[in-house]
Amino acid sequence: METALAAAVAAGESVRGTTSPNPPVGAAILDRQGNLVGTGATEPAGGAHAEIVALREAGEKAEGGTAVVTLEPCNHTGLTGPCSQALLAAGIEFVYYCHPDPDPKAQGGADHLRQQGVGVERLDRDVDTLRPWLTAVRRNRPHVTLKFAQTLDGFTAALDGSSKWITGDEARRHVHADRTKRDAVIIGTGTAIADDPSLTARDGALELPNQPRRVVIGGRSLTGHARNLHHLGFEQYRGIPDALWRLWDSGARDVLVEGGAHLASGFMESGTVDAIQAYIAPKLLGQGRSVLTEAVGLTIAEAAEFTLRHVTRLGDDVLLELTRKD
Amino acid sequence: METALAAAVAAGESVRGTTSPNPPVGAAILDRQGNLVGTGATEPAGGAHAEIVALREAGEKAEGGTAVVTLEPCNHTGLTGPCSQALLAAGIEFVYYCHPDPDPKAQGGADHLRQQGVGVERLDRDVDTLRPWLTAVRRNRPHVTLKFAQTLDGFTAALDGSSKWITGDEARRHVHADRTKRDAVIIGTGTAIADDPSLTARDGALELPNQPRRVVIGGRSLTGHARNLHHLGFEQYRGIPDALWRLWDSGARDVLVEGGAHLASGFMESGTVDAIQAYIAPKLLGQGRSVLTEAVGLTIAEAAEFTLRHVTRLGDDVLLELTRKD
Repeated sequence: METALAAAVAAGESVRGTTSPNPPVGAAILDRQGNLVGTGATEPAGGAHAEIVALREAGEKAEGGTAVVTLEPCNHTGLTGPCSQALLAAGIEFVYYCHPDPDPKAQGGADHLRQQGVGVERLDRDVDTLRPWLTAVRRNRPHVTLKFAQTLDGFTAALDGSSKWITGDEARRHVHADRTKRDAVIIGTGTAIADDPSLTARDGALELPNQPRRVVIGGRSLTGHARNLHHLGFEQYRGIPDALWRLWDSGARDVLVEGGAHLASGFMESGTVDAIQAYIAPKLLGQGRSVLTEAVGLTIAEAAEFTLRHVTRLGDDVLLELTRKD
Repeated sequence: METALAAAVAAGESVRGTTSPNPPVGAAILDRQGNLVGTGATEPAGGAHAEIVALREAGEKAEGGTAVVTLEPCNHTGLTGPCSQALLAAGIEFVYYCHPDPDPKAQGGADHLRQQGVGVERLDRDVDTLRPWLTAVRRNRPHVTLKFAQTLDGFTAALDGSSKWITGDEARRHVHADRTKRDAVIIGTGTAIADDPSLTARDGALELPNQPRRVVIGGRSLTGHARNLHHLGFEQYRGIPDALWRLWDSGARDVLVEGGAHLASGFMESGTVDAIQAYIAPKLLGQGRSVLTEAVGLTIAEAAEFTLRHVTRLGDDVLLELTRKD
C-alpha cells in the first residue's frame, strides 16, 4: 500500500503544470495479490484521467484489484467518462484516495463506488502536488505563489539595484524547474522594463518542456521595452483582480509571482498570497531593496504569518516553502 | 571506532561554555578488545584535561588500549601535567585525534607519542564544538558569533520597534541553551537602555547552569538605566577592539553578539564576525528594522558571504548557522 501510494503521488507530481484546468492526479493499480500492475497520471485537458491511464496499463490484472488515487475518483461525464464507472467496469474491489473532490460537478465518486459494493477508504495523507489546485477550486481563482531570492538579511537586490546573482546555480536550476510546474509566471511592468526577462523555464540555454504563460501586470505600456517578452509573446493585465480572473477563466490554476517588490506588495495587500518560495543566500548586504515595498503592519503582531512546510538546502542556499496560515 | 569518536565528540560538546580559556575537548578510551571503557571531557580551568578524565574512568583497562581525542593531546605542563605523558603511563598503544593543537605552547603531543612507539593517527573529521576555540587561538581574540531573530524578509523588529515575539518557543529555548555554551553575551548600550535585558540563560523562570558573562559595548552611561544588568552585574567596554581584547585577556574564547543593529554593523565593519546564528520566522513585515544599520556594500558582489553549516527546524522557525568564508 505504501509503495502504491508513493507511486501514485510520484505519478501525479510528474505531470504538474501540464493538466490545468484539471488537477495533476496520480493513480496506481494493485492486482488481487497486491502487486503493482499499473500507474497513471492526468493527461493534458481533453485526455484521460489518472485512473484511466493506470487501468489501461493494468489491463485484465485490475480484476479483483485495488486502486490508489491521490484525488477522489470523479463521478461526472466531462470531456471524459466518469472514472468511478471505469473502476467498476475493470472489476476494482477496493479504492483508496487521499483528497475528496471539492468540485461540486465531479463530487460523489466515493459514494457511488460504495453503493456498487466497492470498498472505499480515504487515506489521511496531504498530497503537496494537489494543494495549489485544491486551493484554486476552493477560492475560484488561481493559487498564487510568491517567489523571491534574497540575502539572509532580506534584500532582493543591492542599493545599486544589482541582484545577479544572489543565489547560486542549484537554486537557479530549482527556480527554472519550478516554472515548468506552473500555469503562468507573473511579473510587474517595472520588472519587465528594467530586466527584459524571458520568463522561460530553461536548463542552461536549453528550454525545458512545458513553458508557463508569461504574464505582466500593470498599466504602463511596454511598447519599446521588454524585447524578450515581445519576441516570445506575453499577456498584460491592468491589475491583480483582473489578471487573476482572466487567468482563472482561461484555465490557469497555479501561478507564480516573481516580482518586483511593488507587485509583491500588491499581492500581499490583495490577500491572495497562498504560498511563498523564498530562496535565501548566506550573505549579508546590510541595506538594499526589500522583498516588499509596503509595510504589512506597524507592529510585530500585525506581521503576515505563514506555515513553514519544507526546508531544502540547495547548494549554499536554502529554500523555505511556506503556505498561508488558515 | 565510530562509537568511540561519537562518544568523544558528545563528551566535548557537553562541556561547552565551562572550559575557557581551555578548549572543550572530549576523549574516549577503548580497551585492547575495542570496548569503550572510559569517556571524559575538559574540566573547568585548573581541572583535568579530557584524556585524564577518560583514563581515570578506564583505570587498568586502558593498558594496551586506544585513545580517541577531539584535539591533539597536549605536550606541555601548564596547570596540569602533559596528557601525552599520561597516555604513555597508562599503556595506551594507539591514539586517534581530530584537530592538531594550534597553541605553540601545547603542540607536539602527537610527535612525542610517536617517538615513544605509540601509533598516532589524525582523523579527517571537523569537530564543530572546537571551531570557536580553534578560531580564537588562531586569531588571538574571542570567536565572535552574531545572533539575530528576524522575519523571513529580514526584519528584527516592526516599524514601531516591537519585536516580542518574532520567533516561537522552541527558537527562544534554543537561544537560551546556546547562551550556556558561550563565555559572554554582548549587547550595545542602546539595547541595554531600550530593552533592560537580563542576558541570563533561562528555561522559563529557571536559571540554567553556567551563565555567560554579561557585556555591554558603547560609550553611553547606563546610570539610571538597565536595572536588570545593574542587579545581576555586567561589564562595559567603550568599543569593539577594547572589548575583544579585554575579553580575550580574561579568558573568554567564544562570545555571542545579540544586538542591536548598530552594534552588529560595528562588528561586521570590524571584520570580526566568525559565525552567524540566524533564527528566521515564517512571517513578513514588509518594512521594519533591519539586521544591520549600515550597508555592507553597494552592489551584490560586495555582499558579505558566509558558509552555510547547519539548517535546523525549530518548531515553526528555522535556524541557519553560518561561518565566515575563509
